[in-house]
Amino acid sequence: MIRDPNTIIVGRKPRDDYVLAAIVLLNQGADYAVIRGQGDLIYKAVDVYNLLAERLGSSIELVDVNIGSDKAGSRRISYIEIKVKRTI
Amino acid sequence: MIRDPNTIIVGRKPRDDYVLAAIVLLNQGADYAVIRGQGDLIYKAVDVYNLLAERLGSSIELVDVNIGSDKAGSRRISYIEIKVKRTI
Repeated sequence: MIRDPNTIIVGRKPRDDYVLAAIVLLNQGADYAVIRGQGDLIYKAVDVYNLLAERLGSSIELVDVNIGSDKAGSRRISYIEIKVKRTI
Repeated sequence: MIRDPNTIIVGRKPRDDYVLAAIVLLNQGADYAVIRGQGDLIYKAVDVYNLLAERLGSSIELVDVNIGSDKAGSRRISYIEIKVKRTI
């Protein structure tokens, strides 16, 4: 699977690590960032988005939210991808 | 808070209960259904959507996914609202 290089994959680190990663990415000139979480990390990905929105206010905008599932062997794992863009 | 009557709030019951609730709602003539989960139930809400999409195939369509947070005392709780509509 080829993944967008602007994707931040939410894992087991503290939420703020991913918020900071998104801020750094956007400050380095990326027009957008995708926050991705799968399985029980979907909740955390939404938290990261909310913290980012709180932190950056109107300088970011939610572009869209993509949900679906990936095959993992015989099982399917749900995921979320939250795309935000810089407005300034 | 006034909530859309077509909202299915995902709680601690088995996933299939909510999938079935959505199917019943849509079969009763509702044009759309909103699957809502908050906190650690966000993951489950996405699972419910994926199971529903698997079950109903092209007879439903994802309209949009809304994420945000609600105030709960001094804390904020993330939520997701997944809106699907009937296509037939």
